[in-house]
Formats: sequence, structure tokens, C-alpha cells
Amino acid sequence: MEETFVPFRGIKNDLKGRLMCYKQDWTGGFSAGIRILAPTTYIFFASAIPVISFGEQLERNTDGVLTAVQTLASTALCGIIHSIIGGQPLLILGVAEPTVIMYTFMFNFAKERPELGRNLFLAWTGWVCVWTALLLFLLAILGACSIINRFTRVAGELFGLLIAMLFLQQAIKGLVDEFLIPKRENPNSLEFVPSWRFANGMFALVLSFGLLLTALRSRKARSWRYGSGWLRSFVADYGVPLMVLIWTAISYIPTSSVPKGIPRRLFSPNPWSPGAYENWTVIKDMLNVPVLYIIGAFIPASMIAVLYYFDHSVASQLSQQKEFNLRKPASYHYDLLLLGFLTLLCGLIGIPPSNGVIPQSPMHTKSLATLKHQLLRNRLVATARRSMRKNASLGQLYGNMQEAYQQMQTPLIYQEASSRGLRDLKESTIQAASSMGNYIDAPVDETVFDVEKEIDDLLPVEVKEQRVSNLLQAAMVGGCVAAMPFLKMIPTSVLWGYFAFMAIESLPGNQFWERILLLFTAPSRRYKVLEEYHATFVETVPFKTIATFTLFQLAYLLICFGLTWVPIAGLMFPLMIMLLVPVRQYFLPKFFKGVHLQDLDAAEYEEAPALPFNLATEAELGSGATYAGDSEILDEVITRSRGEFRHTSSPKVTSTSSTPANAPKIVESPRFSSNSPRVSELKGEQSPRSGGREQNSPRGGEVRLSKLGKSPLNTTTK
Amino acid sequence: MEETFVPFRGIKNDLKGRLMCYKQDWTGGFSAGIRILAPTTYIFFASAIPVISFGEQLERNTDGVLTAVQTLASTALCGIIHSIIGGQPLLILGVAEPTVIMYTFMFNFAKERPELGRNLFLAWTGWVCVWTALLLFLLAILGACSIINRFTRVAGELFGLLIAMLFLQQAIKGLVDEFLIPKRENPNSLEFVPSWRFANGMFALVLSFGLLLTALRSRKARSWRYGSGWLRSFVADYGVPLMVLIWTAISYIPTSSVPKGIPRRLFSPNPWSPGAYENWTVIKDMLNVPVLYIIGAFIPASMIAVLYYFDHSVASQLSQQKEFNLRKPASYHYDLLLLGFLTLLCGLIGIPPSNGVIPQSPMHTKSLATLKHQLLRNRLVATARRSMRKNASLGQLYGNMQEAYQQMQTPLIYQEASSRGLRDLKESTIQAASSMGNYIDAPVDETVFDVEKEIDDLLPVEVKEQRVSNLLQAAMVGGCVAAMPFLKMIPTSVLWGYFAFMAIESLPGNQFWERILLLFTAPSRRYKVLEEYHATFVETVPFKTIATFTLFQLAYLLICFGLTWVPIAGLMFPLMIMLLVPVRQYFLPKFFKGVHLQDLDAAEYEEAPALPFNLATEAELGSGATYAGDSEILDEVITRSRGEFRHTSSPKVTSTSSTPANAPKIVESPRFSSNSPRVSELKGEQSPRSGGREQNSPRGGEVRLSKLGKSPLNTTTK
Repeated sequence: MEETFVPFRGIKNDLKGRLMCYKQDWTGGFSAGIRILAPTTYIFFASAIPVISFGEQLERNTDGVLTAVQTLASTALCGIIHSIIGGQPLLILGVAEPTVIMYTFMFNFAKERPELGRNLFLAWTGWVCVWTALLLFLLAILGACSIINRFTRVAGELFGLLIAMLFLQQAIKGLVDEFLIPKRENPNSLEFVPSWRFANGMFALVLSFGLLLTALRSRKARSWRYGSGWLRSFVADYGVPLMVLIWTAISYIPTSSVPKGIPRRLFSPNPWSPGAYENWTVIKDMLNVPVLYIIGAFIPASMIAVLYYFDHSVASQLSQQKEFNLRKPASYHYDLLLLGFLTLLCGLIGIPPSNGVIPQSPMHTKSLATLKHQLLRNRLVATARRSMRKNASLGQLYGNMQEAYQQMQTPLIYQEASSRGLRDLKESTIQAASSMGNYIDAPVDETVFDVEKEIDDLLPVEVKEQRVSNLLQAAMVGGCVAAMPFLKMIPTSVLWGYFAFMAIESLPGNQFWERILLLFTAPSRRYKVLEEYHATFVETVPFKTIATFTLFQLAYLLICFGLTWVPIAGLMFPLMIMLLVPVRQYFLPKFFKGVHLQDLDAAEYEEAPALPFNLATEAELGSGATYAGDSEILDEVITRSRGEFRHTSSPKVTSTSSTPANAPKIVESPRFSSNSPRVSELKGEQSPRSGGREQNSPRGGEVRLSKLGKSPLNTTTK
Repeated sequence: MEETFVPFRGIKNDLKGRLMCYKQDWTGGFSAGIRILAPTTYIFFASAIPVISFGEQLERNTDGVLTAVQTLASTALCGIIHSIIGGQPLLILGVAEPTVIMYTFMFNFAKERPELGRNLFLAWTGWVCVWTALLLFLLAILGACSIINRFTRVAGELFGLLIAMLFLQQAIKGLVDEFLIPKRENPNSLEFVPSWRFANGMFALVLSFGLLLTALRSRKARSWRYGSGWLRSFVADYGVPLMVLIWTAISYIPTSSVPKGIPRRLFSPNPWSPGAYENWTVIKDMLNVPVLYIIGAFIPASMIAVLYYFDHSVASQLSQQKEFNLRKPASYHYDLLLLGFLTLLCGLIGIPPSNGVIPQSPMHTKSLATLKHQLLRNRLVATARRSMRKNASLGQLYGNMQEAYQQMQTPLIYQEASSRGLRDLKESTIQAASSMGNYIDAPVDETVFDVEKEIDDLLPVEVKEQRVSNLLQAAMVGGCVAAMPFLKMIPTSVLWGYFAFMAIESLPGNQFWERILLLFTAPSRRYKVLEEYHATFVETVPFKTIATFTLFQLAYLLICFGLTWVPIAGLMFPLMIMLLVPVRQYFLPKFFKGVHLQDLDAAEYEEAPALPFNLATEAELGSGATYAGDSEILDEVITRSRGEFRHTSSPKVTSTSSTPANAPKIVESPRFSSNSPRVSELKGEQSPRSGGREQNSPRGGEVRLSKLGKSPLNTTTK
């Protein structure tokens, strides 16, 4: 995106781009049929559970002024509106932890001011929202989002890790609280005698760790060895909600011997109970707020505006990363404008506003990539089988598959890049087949062409981009308000486990996190990093530089995290994160070499033109990449790589490169033996280097032997 | 061992063989220095903890007649005597679960007979032990152990799994009991009110699962990526006792708010408390037992004799499996004779007798293999470094290492087979080196020869065979009697976790278990089994046959397990297991083909002469084998393969086969693509087969490309 600050231009461009595919956003979604429910429920849980417990948190922090009903209502309302008239439908909106922190700060401020107090708190936040909305309008109109390219990995990933830390903090705090008497309860009731409190705490430990461990396991179900394929897919798709259900059921097992309040369960007023409607009429009170406070509301408003501007844009950016190969355009400016309206609306009806959330938004894209993969796979497998029954040759087979693939493509811009994947593979595989004694024109059967395996290897990462899943999940969040009596059956400890799960799920693929791990990796084991998927910097940047950069970032992260603990000044933490953008642009280049910075934190504004699609580089030598052969690979690709377009992100490459008979040149990489020049760099020694990135290119033409026997056609040797 | 039943011949042979290396058994042990403590403490814990909780179990079952003091005393006494004058010092003795079951049966029988009752129970078991000892003498003298070759995998592994099931059963029963009021306690005390009981149960869940999960993790520490090598070794060596310590410490955290009895801890009288000496004088009461019961004691005695004959021999066999490459001879007959004496001794002083235990005995050998590996490694690394400092050539370097290696060899029989490993590697590596442009006579440095990595690859599996670790661990178990006040600090729930840990640790390598898993593996995923270490049968036996065989064995196991639950007839369960030997020999061949049976359950009496050492076969294609390069490989080799001499059990092979420059022939295996003929077999179809085993041999000369970059010399291409 070019950096232009002509008023309204950004919004206009966004609208133009998204209107082009608006109809397809709906038709494409409905065409997916029942399968759309997998990503929908996955995101619904990822969205609703934190919002519910943020509601609980807010309720405690605001003496019951705001509850889970309000946070759910805001998330549902904003989500529905955004999914229908928003720009980027991959973006998930919700009440986020930073908003909760901000509202807590504001409540603590307001309740001590006699002019405001608890009663006028919502009216005052109404004014804060008004100001925030105005600032957001300004930012959107003036094209502030066109500097999104300056939001580099360093800022986005730091923010991601901060959110993960806040989630984990909440999980730990929640667990500790299970041993204590909650403030709002009667301390004399039976379940708060020391013995039951202790029992409750221990039960909570069991439930939350049970949920955490089983949920983490279930996400990996696709690579399980046991159970039918159907079961494995089901567990992988719906495992997390299933686990919430199972552990909730388990929490009811000791019901006979245990008092009713153990384990503690979600606390929230039913939306139909008296008093739950107090805050919906907050607009009437807004004029009662003293003028001084109306003006003063600008200060928190500016912080929230900065926060939302950053958070919303980064969430949108993370859900549209390069390796997802999205076809439809982004919509930063228009979405920010809409966010302004949504904030205004929420402020006027006295509920906390929603904004784009991390990690739910990238989770949403990932789950849609899985969906798209399944849809494409089913279609192509059917086509291939049909062709085989008609005794088609390998050439015809690929022709038919190519055609079926084309039919499933969104007829939109960015077209030519996407269909290339299949064509490339066709050519190289046919070439391999013929060189191994198979004739292109001979009929193929399943012994030569293992349909499911082949197609899995062949499909590039694509995302089912549509609005239906977003709308449905938002509607379901809205349904939660009505389903409150059922939600209240969930033990709070299961929520804490879920929080920890979300925090941990957001880590893989975060290069900042991976660099932190690298710091703790024993020098003798660093070569193992090279054996797996890894980012470029691992090979091109000296270890000392990586360490310095990471330690700087870590210190910055801890300062930001510490700031959220400081009573009033904590309001400033969004500024600290925004500050990282100029720090990255003007301060860091003074301490790090340009080439190193580029590998550690590629910034598009200073980057050379993108490399041509780089086929065979180091990554497919690693173990993970070449096992492939199953939908696992997708899990691998989309969970492990998040920020950077890795060289293996398109699984089709693997299959090509593991055909030695077809290999123009067999290269043995010196990289794994621990005394190669690259590894010695890892050990902290610097070796003379020829330059930045261009050295990757010559490797593109080489074909490496990776895993033996992976080639689709070597069975002809039998 | 030839099957001969000439009286005393077996004992004589055993004595002759073991006396030859008796001195070296001690000098070799002491020469290991402080490092001997790693296997010693590992086995001490594996030995003491079950014995302590079997003691608890016995105490409950015998109304306090026998306690942990007696089981510990028996284990220590028998262990010390066996380690000094026993035959096979790798064998660990202890009071085992079957003994506990037998004693429980006997107590239930005795206490209902007015002539015996609780008071004469020990005197009567004294008679049982007398009879048992006589039977064991007979068996030993008549050479019953020479049929040990008929104890095939099918019986040994079934017994191993039965023990694992009993351990797991104990863990589950123990955990459930944590929620209930123990029989011996006052049900009115504070810690047994419902709330504290529930709290105790939940706490127990946390502690036992905590111990189980962390202990399982810690055993894999050698392959961790984080922490220094020293720390990783330490955690892998001492992780399990460390975890017992840590979780015991954790159990003391909530001390202030919780009554003293929570969590429940080990219960046992101190050995110096009055009444603990009652049973040591049992010999005086033995003549008070009515004659009818003295004669009747023969019935349980015969069962116990069968049990001990089988259990002792199988434990000894499992601790001396082929892949450990032991140098010193076995000693089945003499050990059985000694066991007779030990049983007599225990009977006369009123303690339950000990016998060879599973899984501790094989665990002992494994831990000594790790020790030997470390010792060899350190010595060879030092030698190599010294040679390099002197500018030695590659030829000289290997010469020096060869010499150092020879110096560390036990100067005994079986010699020539063992030193071959190093020489083979020397030749092939030098050959590889010269063909890649390195001259044998040029001085080597660390860039060419990565000392630690090379040596790890090069060392074959060897075991530090000595008596010191066994003596020390038995003495430490004896020390436990004195350390009872400290042991009593361990929560019982930690014990239950440890039981589950022992059960799980004993599973890998048990082919019966692996076949059960194979039954549950989705047909589409069976090819994954082929990608890893796997036994021969996976490739050579049709899936249907594997399934039938496994289901038969499983049914048999469940019958045996069920039998341990039946009140008096349960006494017969050792017979059921012994019965498996004739079933295997005469019944199974009627239902399964000879070649299949041989692969599923190789019996030496029907097997062709052993194959020559088979270098490059399928296993090194698997991922696990070729990563090697570290002491992990040892963990891998010795934990994953237990009963069969796998083709990769000697890590040195890997390094040779990964030198493509040296490869006479590059073979791509068709085995991994899922439609190869071998895999189609796995899918249940039978394909025509040329014969039994000989087809492995031609592959011996081929060199396969395994992991790229693993070759020691490919760094010369830089």
C-alpha cells in the first residue's frame, strides 16, 4: 500500500476493492455448506469465552456496573455489524483485554471523583467514546492506516506476546483466586470454609490443567495415528469446544458429596433480571457530566484511539499475512472508520466497545485455510477418482484436476499467482513420471497415483474468504446472552485453562517468541533449529546480533507489561507500543546492520523488491516439511509460520524436490554437520558474508534429496 | 544354552562362568567412580518405592502383620546377598506384586482357619517357604532353566504387560482410595470430614498426575533443546527421584491452612517401635502349626515355586537381552538355587521373600548401558582431542581411539564380536574421507572431525556389567528401614503417580504392546509405523495374522488378569502363564504359519542359525535412527527395542550409511510410499512372498541415503 495522506482516498480505495467481491463474500460462504460450522464454532468459542471472563473481570473491577452481559452484547453487536458492512470479514471483533484494563483505570478514576462517581461512570465513558470515535474518524479519513507497512513484525509480535502474557496472567490470577474468598460473596457460606475453599482450589487445578492439556492435544488430532480419519478431523476441528463440554461434565461428577458452589462457576446476571438494563439508557445521563470532565475525557480517549488504531490494524494485518495467499483486498481505512462508528454506538448505549482482536483474528484465517483445504481436497479427490475410472492417462488426469481446481477459484483479481501451484506440480510430476518409465499417455490407477496423498501434497495454502463464518460466530455470541443459564454451568477454572490455552496457541509462529527460545537453546543443540522450519534470520544473522535484538525487545515487552500494572499512568501503555514504530524506523538502524534488521524484522518500506517465488531452499530439508502427505502439513504450515512467507509454505514444493530421478543436481547440504560455516555463526562467531539475501536465489534451481521414499512415483520401481 | 537335564550341570556351568569374571565384577564397578551413582539411585528408587507401597498394601491386607519394614528388609537382605554371591548381578531382587497377591490369598485362607489364625499365619508361610525352597532346589539342580529358550517373547511380554496392568491398577485404586476413609484410621478425625476428604482426593490427583507427567518428561531430558548438556544429563539421570522430591516438597506448601493428615503420607511403623520385632522369631512357632497344614502348605508352595521359577528367569532374561551386547555369561540355574536359599531364609524369619523383578531388572541394564556409554565417550573424546593436539592424521587418530577403546574392554570371552564395531567404522570412515578428498595421512582438526558427535555415532551399545550398583542399591533399600521417618514424608499420591510411571515406562519396546497399538492404528496411518523403528513382523507378517495373534494374546492376558481377582483360585495365575510355554510350542503352530510365528515370536529352538550381523537394513531409514548424533540415540535404542536385536541397535551403522560419496549404490526404498507392496500387506492383503528371513540379507551391502548432512566428513565440501 502506498503511503498517501490525501483525505478519504484510503477509504475510497478500500470500499472499491471490497465492493467488487462483496457478493462473492456471501455466495462463497454459503457454498461451503455445513462445513462452515467448523471454523465458526472454533472462533465462536475463542471469541465468546474470553469475552465472558473479561465480563467477569470487569464486573469485579467496576463493582458490577459492567458484566458479561454487556461485553457479550458489545461483541455480538459490533461483530454482526462488522461482518455485514465491514471491510475485511476475516477480522474478528470483540471486547479485548486492553479495553478492560482501560475501563478499569477509568472506573478507578471516576469512582473517586464526587462529581462523577459510580453513577455517572458510564455517562463519562460515553463521552470518552465520543472523543475516541472522532479521533478514529480523523485517522481513517487522513489515511493513517497507509503507514501500516511501518508496523513491522517487531511491533506486531511484541503486542501479540503482550496479549499472550495478559491472558496467561489472567489464567494464573484466576487459579489463585479459586483458593480465596471472592469479594462479592458471603464469606460465611458453606463453600468458603477453609476445607471447601482448599478443595475448590485443588479441583480448579485439576479442571484447568485438564482442559489445557487435552485442548492442546486435541488440536494435534490430525496427526494422531489412532482412530478413523473422520474422528481425527472431528477432534481437530471441534476438539476445544468438546473439551470445554467434557471438563464441564466432569465438574458435575462429585455433585453428591460437594456443596453447590464447588467448583465455582461463571457468575453473571441473566439479561432478563431487573437492573440489567440500567446502562442501556446511559445517553440520558451524558449531559449531567460536568463540562470539565467532558473535556477531560479527551485524555483517555486519545489513548484508546491510539490503542484501537494500532490493535485493530495489527489484528487485521495478522489475519492477512502473506503466507495465507489471500485473494481479496485489505480494508484498513474503511474498517477504522467503521470502528469509529461502532465505538460511538457502544459508548452511547453504555457498553464497552469492541475492536479487532488478537489472537482470534489470525485463528479465524487459519481455520478458514483448513476449511478451504478440505473443500478443495474433496473436490479434487472426486475428480481424480472419476478420471481414473474412465482410464484416463496421467496427462488427462491432471487436466481434469486443473479444471476442477479452476472452477473452485474465486473469479477475482490476483488470479494468476494462485493457479500456478497446480500447474507447476503437474509439469514436474509428469516429467518425473516419464523419466521413471511411466508414460504420460498410459492409463493411471491408484497404485501409481495415490490420490489422497498426492492431492494433499499438491494443494497450496488458500483461505475460504467469506462473511458467513464471521456473521454466524457473532450471532452465536449474541445467542450467549440468551444462553446465559447454560453458560453459567461452565466452571470458572475451565475458563482459566482456556485462557492459558489461548496464550500458548498464539505462540508458535511468533518469531519474537522463537528468538527467545533460541536464546535458551544450548549452543550444541542450535543445529536442531536448522533441521526444522525456521526463519531466514537463523541462518543469516550472527547469534550475537539475534541475542541483542531479542533482549532489547524483551526489555521493551517487560516495560509494557509492567506499565499495565501501574495505577493511572498505565493508561499510557498503548503509547509505548505505538512508540515502537518510530523506534524501529529511526533508532534501531543505528545499532543493527541493515541486512540483519531486514532478516530480523523485514520492513517493506526499506526492503528490496520481493524475491521470485523461491522453490527449493533449506526448509524442506528439515524433518517436518517432508513428512507432509496429509492434512497435517497444513496444520504445520499455518500454525508454525505466522509472519513470514516461508519457502515451504506451499506444500507442493516438497513433493517435487524429493524425486531424485528427476533431480538435475543432487546437493548435499553442509548445513547440518555442526562444524559448517553457518552453524559456527550460530555459535556466535561471525564469518565473512557475501551479502544480504541474494544468496538464497541460486539455490532455487537445485533439487535436494530430502526424505527418501516420499516421491509420489517411486512406487513404479516395484 | 543346550537343553540338558543332567543334575547339577547347569549350576556348575553357571558357577564356572561367573567365577571367571567375579573379580572384574568388582574392579569394573569401582573403576566407574562417582558416576555409578546415577544408575544406582535410579534403580534404588525404582526398587524401593514399589516395595514400600507393596508393604502398605500388605499391611492393609494382613491386618498389620506384615508392613513396609518387612518388605524393605526382605528386599535389602536378598538384594545384598544376591549382589555379592549371586550369579547375574544385573538382576534386581525385590518383593514383587505377585508375591503380595500370593501372601494376601494365604492370609485370607489362614485367618479363617481357627487352627492357624492371624497368630500362626507367619509360621505357616514359613512352611510354605520351606516347601518352595525345596522345589526351587529341585528345579535348579535338575536343570529346569535350560528350557529358558522356550520362554519366548509371547510369554515374557505377556507377563510384562500383566505386571504393568497390576501397577496401573494399584495406581488407580490408590487414587480412588484417597477420596475414601482408610480402614485403619479413626473416621472421626478432622481430615476425614467430607470436605477435607474431597480436598485430599483432589490434591492427590494434582500430586500424582504432576509426578507422572514431569517424571515422563524428565526421562527425555537428553533430547531437550534447552539448558546445558550437564543439566540435561543430570535431569535424565536423576529426574525421577528429583521429581519425587519436588512433588513431596510441593505437598508441604499448603501446610498452614490444611490439617496435618492432608495429603495422606506413607504409613509404616518405625522399625524401632515396639512390636516391629514380633515376626523375626517366627521360627519358634513353626512347630506349632498342625501337621495337616504343614503338608497342605505344599499347594501354595508349588504355585509360588512356579511363579518364582518363571518370574526370576524371565526377569534375568529380560535384563540380558541380545541388543545389550553383554559380555559376561548368564547364570539361570545357580541364581535359582540361590533364590531357593533366600526364600528359605525369608520364610524362617517371617518376611515375604524377594525374587527377580520386572521392570526393574531391565531398567537396571538400560541405566548401566547409559553409564557405559558415558564412560566410553569421555575416554574416547579425551583421546581424540589429545591426538589432534599432536597433529595426528585421521589414521593415527582412529588408531589411538581403537587402542583406548580396547583398554576399556573387559578382558574376557565374547571378545572378538565386540571390538569389531569400532574397527568397522574406522575403515569405512577413512574410505569415505579419502574418497571425498581428505587424505588419511593429513593432520585432522575439529572442523573435519567433530569429536563428540563422531564418537557418539560410533559407540556400540555396551553395558557396564558389575556388582557395585546392585549392592549399593540394595544397601540403600536397607537404609530405607532406618530412614523410615523421612520416607514417611512422601505423600501416598506421589507413590500412585510413580506406579503409573513405572507401568508406562515398561511399555515401549514390548512388542505385544506395540502390536496392540497397531490394531488401533488407522489403516491409512499404518505406513507411519514403517517410518520408525519397527520390528520385523510389521513387514513380513500379514496384518490379519498379526491381528489374530495379538487378539489371542490379549484374551489370554485378560484371563490372567481376571484370575488375580478371583479369591482362592487366583492362586493359580502363575500356572496360567507357565502354561503359555507349551501353548506356544504345540498349540500355536497349528494356527499360524511357521515363518509368521518366527517373526512374531522368535523361538530359538525352532529358529535357523542366527544371521550374520546385518548392517544396513530398513531401520536406519526411519527418522529416529538417523538423527542420532547424541546420547539420545542410546535412549532411543535401549528404550525402544527390548526383545529383539534390531538392525540399528548399534548406532555406528548410521554414520557409515549416511556417506553418499562412499555409497556403492544409492537405493531409494519403495517402502514409504503408501502403495508399495509391503504397505499393501499392512493393509491386510497378502502378497506372494519368497520366504522367511533371507530376504533381509541382500540389502546388507547397500548403502542408503538417510539424513543429509549427517555424514562426518561432508564438511570438507565447504
